[in-house]
Formats: sequence, C-alpha cells, structure tokens
Amino acid sequence: MPTIPRLTNARAPLTKDVEVLDEFGARRHITIPAERALTLFVDNRELVTLMTLGAAPELLVMGYLRNQRLVESVEDIESITVDWEVEAAAVKTRAGIERFDEKTAKRVVTTGCGQGTVFGDLMGELDSVRLPPAGLPSARLTQASLYRLLNVMRLQETTYKSSGSVHGCALFRQDELMMFVEDVGRHNAIDTIAGWMWLHGMDGGDKIFYTTGRLTSEMVIKSAQIGVPIIVSRSGITQMGYELAMRLGLCLFGRATNRHFICYCGFDRFDAQPEPAELAPVKARTA
Amino acid sequence: MPTIPRLTNARAPLTKDVEVLDEFGARRHITIPAERALTLFVDNRELVTLMTLGAAPELLVMGYLRNQRLVESVEDIESITVDWEVEAAAVKTRAGIERFDEKTAKRVVTTGCGQGTVFGDLMGELDSVRLPPAGLPSARLTQASLYRLLNVMRLQETTYKSSGSVHGCALFRQDELMMFVEDVGRHNAIDTIAGWMWLHGMDGGDKIFYTTGRLTSEMVIKSAQIGVPIIVSRSGITQMGYELAMRLGLCLFGRATNRHFICYCGFDRFDAQPEPAELAPVKARTA
Repeated sequence: MPTIPRLTNARAPLTKDVEVLDEFGARRHITIPAERALTLFVDNRELVTLMTLGAAPELLVMGYLRNQRLVESVEDIESITVDWEVEAAAVKTRAGIERFDEKTAKRVVTTGCGQGTVFGDLMGELDSVRLPPAGLPSARLTQASLYRLLNVMRLQETTYKSSGSVHGCALFRQDELMMFVEDVGRHNAIDTIAGWMWLHGMDGGDKIFYTTGRLTSEMVIKSAQIGVPIIVSRSGITQMGYELAMRLGLCLFGRATNRHFICYCGFDRFDAQPEPAELAPVKARTA
Repeated sequence: MPTIPRLTNARAPLTKDVEVLDEFGARRHITIPAERALTLFVDNRELVTLMTLGAAPELLVMGYLRNQRLVESVEDIESITVDWEVEAAAVKTRAGIERFDEKTAKRVVTTGCGQGTVFGDLMGELDSVRLPPAGLPSARLTQASLYRLLNVMRLQETTYKSSGSVHGCALFRQDELMMFVEDVGRHNAIDTIAGWMWLHGMDGGDKIFYTTGRLTSEMVIKSAQIGVPIIVSRSGITQMGYELAMRLGLCLFGRATNRHFICYCGFDRFDAQPEPAELAPVKARTA
C-alpha cells in the first residue's frame, strides 16, 4: 500500500456571471468559465504559474509534476496544499527533488492553441514507451464501443455546455467513463487525469483518452507517458501528433461526434463495423 | 528610416497528405496541417523551441522576441536565419541582449489550449499600456463594419478550410484586411502578426485583431502590447481575458460569425446598429 500524499480539496467556482451586449442590442447576462493563476512552489521553490479553471487543482499539480518527470513516485510527495487566496500550490516532497535546476532548465514551447511548455527531453524518453500489443482485446476498440463512448460524452453535464471556452478530457475503460475533467487549457485537463491515475496507481494500458482538443504532439506524448494506447478527439490532428502516434503505435480517432469519425492511424487497434455506404458523404471532410 | 533586419524567407509546406479510415470503412486521403519544431538561438544561445505550421517563421521569431520583451527595437536585430534542415532560427543582434538570463528566468505557463509560456512580469508591464480613447473614430467599430470584417474572414482561403486544426489571426483597419496568418498555435499566429507590425513600424491604435481562438488572458495581453484596442474572436472568452480587457479598456467581441456576436466589454468602442428584435433567438447562447 503506497503512502498517499495529503491533498487539500480547493475546488473553486467554475463560472462567472457577466453582462454582455448582443447583435440585437440587448444587454443580457451569460456565464463565462473562470480562469485563475496557480503558482507552483516545490519545497518552497517557485516552479511555474499555471492558468486554470480550478476544478481539481491538486490533481492538476500532481499530473503536472508527473508529466514533467519532476517526481518519480507518488510516495515522493508528502502533501499538496492549494490556497486560492494567494493563488499558490505548495508541494512538499519527502526527500527533495534531485537535480531540480537541470530538470527545469530546458524549455520546449509546444503547440496546443498556446505555447505550452515541456521541460526536458521528452522526445528522447518516448523511445522507452511500451504500449500493450494491438492484439490484446483491452487495448483495442470496436466501432460500437466508440459510438457508446461518444454518446456518454454527449450526455455529460459540462461547464462547456453552460459557458463554452473550456476543453474537456475523459478517461474511459472501453465505453465506461472513469474520470472527466475540464479546464481552460486542454493540457491542464490531461495533466489532471494523469494526476488522478497516478494517485490511484492506475495502469493506462486498457484505457482510452477522450479529448475535445486537437491531437497535437503533446496530447500524444502525454497519453503515451501514461501508457494509454487509444485517443479519441472531437477535433482534428496536426502532423507531429500523427507522426508521433505512428511511431509509438497509438490509435487516434478525430472529428469524432455521434456516428462520425476519422481513424488517423493505429488501424490495427480498431475493429471497424462500417456504416452502410449509402450514408457516405459526397464530399470529403477535412482533417 | 530604421535599419531593417535581414530575413530569410523559409516558408515551408503547410499541409501533409495522410491515409485515414472513416466510419464507412473506407480508406481515403486527407490533408492535415504541418507542424514542425523551430528552435530559437539568439546570438548562439538556445532560447526556446516553438512548434509551428511554418507559414512565416521569420515574422514569428520577430514577434516572439518582441512580445517576450527580449528585444526593444527592430534595429537591434541584425538578421534572422531560418533553416528547416536543422529546425533552427538563428537570431543575430547588433549589440547582444542585456540581462538575457534575468529576462528569461521567470516562467508563466498560460492558458490557451496549451500551457503557454510568457517570460517576465508582463502583467506588471500592462499598467503602462495606453490605448487610444474610445471617442476616436479609428479606435471604434460599427456593427456594419464588424459584419463586413466577418465576411472578409468567411471568404478568406485558409489552411483551416483544407486541413482543419489550425488557428487563424488577422489584422484589420476597420474592415480592411491588412495581414492574415495561420499557425498550429494561436499564440504563434498573433506573434507573427506582431512581428509583421513591428517590422513595418506600424501602430496598433487604429487596428482590429481577428482570431479564431478564444479570448484568453494572453490574447488580451498580446493585443494590448501592440496597442490594438479591439479584438474579434470566432470563439468565446475566459475570465482572465475578460478581466484584463475591462481593466485595459479593450473592446472584445466573441462568438462572431455571419451576423452573430457577443460584445463582452468595451461597449463604448462599439456603435451598435441592432438587428430587428423579431430575429432574436429564444434561448441565450453560451459565452
């Protein structure tokens, strides 16, 4: 039984009410998603400031530390204390972080919609990633399961539905929803899920990531880091997301809503049960 | 006449052809947007790696240096040499950058869809931003001009239309399109426009930014940095984008397509010419 870190539970209000003016000249009230700064201090040293919705800040911090490879094991973390009054998350480790400066020295500004930051040489590290073989039933997906997964997401109550402008991420085991989180940054959302999995010692090999965001290089990297072999996105893809997934043997679905999708790669993890051809669109959709 | 830096013209192919599998079980070819790493070296010192579409890498580098406040004047840059073979942009300054380490020491990971990076204390710097007064006709927008601007964007030929998954940014003077660029990261797109404006010594006070991305804090910050008082977005808004714009006196339009929009703030820069009320929707849209 691993020693679990002490965590606060500092979920903050997720929306804010504002008065706007619309095209009819009417003033009306709408809700917009919250966004707040959260500065991470690791053993009293400032690491980084994340801009977040604030839905699950402690898990976000855990996932961030893990995905940046700053902490190797959950047990190395003694506590994470989030205090919105000072917009800070204080991480206390049991034995300090070795080579802290070295690990945080190299910056890669990644794509997303933003200029994300990845510390260190993640690309190099990916060579050691081993995803479960495509022949394993738990590491594949049927078209019917994909549709059920998409339907679960369609029915999910979300901040997106009430306020727009946030990205959602979810973790599935086949079509069973295990965890769902939203954030203003989709990398925060996937980091939060990574933190949750890490906290619970959960393996990714039989899981599926769902994201509303694009399949960019970091989404593929972060998924691979946690051992998840299949990603489903409501959006499209970029070249590096595609190339990394090809190299790693990930299966990527994009443009996935209702009964529509594109499988970009990893066809061998997918059991197609094709729709009748007479429903096929005349015009090809874009990536 | 300022001394203009020497720039390469290393525009790279913007799309890539891939074979995919669709819901009808058909293999077909689609194009996806390119995405490549570009590592910036300033006077032979590695600064950062940007992931970019590659449409205008030299302008991106210029805008990045400017928006990060690493270089104060165009004339300080002697040359920018982009070489895709080695995925590098070599920036040569005339006199070096003072306090380089200090300026790049502080990291803020911003929202976007990603975890963007802003060096230094931009928030503090915003107190010195002075946007033109709302009474100035060139720093306001009528509803008719907004519609014309949106129509120009609708007709624009884009990588988005052919391949999806990129963000577009444009600079307008009222409804006159001056510059349009796309990138896999929307912050890259706005940085590219900033670089272009900077190169041409262009003032932002009578300009309007259009972006397909959300109105997050960095979009507002970057717009304010270049002195642009009005932003139009096809997407929504986040709380910090809203609060910063309120503080700075920016006018923000979101959810803007065809004849629909929400004006979130800066109402005093907007000349409403309301649509007939009988067209009003029954249900309020989200932020």
